Amino acid sequence: MALPGFVYGGLIASLVDCHAIGTAAAAVERAAGRAIGDGPAPRFVTASLHVDYLKPTPLGPELELRARAREVGGRKVVVEVSVSAGGVVTARGEVVAVRMPDTMKGGV
Amino acid sequence: MALPGFVYGGLIASLVDCHAIGTAAAAVERAAGRAIGDGPAPRFVTASLHVDYLKPTPLGPELELRARAREVGGRKVVVEVSVSAGGVVTARGEVVAVRMPDTMKGGV
Repeated sequence: MALPGFVYGGLIASLVDCHAIGTAAAAVERAAGRAIGDGPAPRFVTASLHVDYLKPTPLGPELELRARAREVGGRKVVVEVSVSAGGVVTARGEVVAVRMPDTMKGGV
Repeated sequence: MALPGFVYGGLIASLVDCHAIGTAAAAVERAAGRAIGDGPAPRFVTASLHVDYLKPTPLGPELELRARAREVGGRKVVVEVSVSAGGVVTARGEVVAVRMPDTMKGGV
């Protein structure tokens, strides 16, 4: 539900998802001794997404997302994400990212 | 991450969130012996959102969301949601909805 003056929770979930998927790819590349850009990045999709909305996120201040890969496997990466507005953490997320199944690669 | 031919996971999370919040309000009204529309509906916000992406959700078929309030309290409602495309369940979600804090009501 969107309320005037606050960031919609679905948008926060989307930001968490997006940042976590990028982090998963970067973490796997780093673990393999490569940097993003060295070659085709591994593609991940979201297996599960969890977001705790700790407090309302104000609309206006710049939002900062920080992510950390807590578990890096060949097929699965678990990423923790925080969302801050004006230096205050307003949401925390956890994403389980898995390597993209071949069935999804057709259109890419 | 969005892929051609599939519904973006962040959008699925938004649908789950939105449908769960509406269901929470309806469940509380029903528990009080009222129907939505009988009076001002109780306002809920999302405390936490969890989505399991069981399989890719194809872009094209009509999506069906079904929600059920598993736990209905005065302040907190837990809602389970399924997302189906063409009769196949592609995602399941769980939302903890809480009554809107007074601090968020200013702009409404």
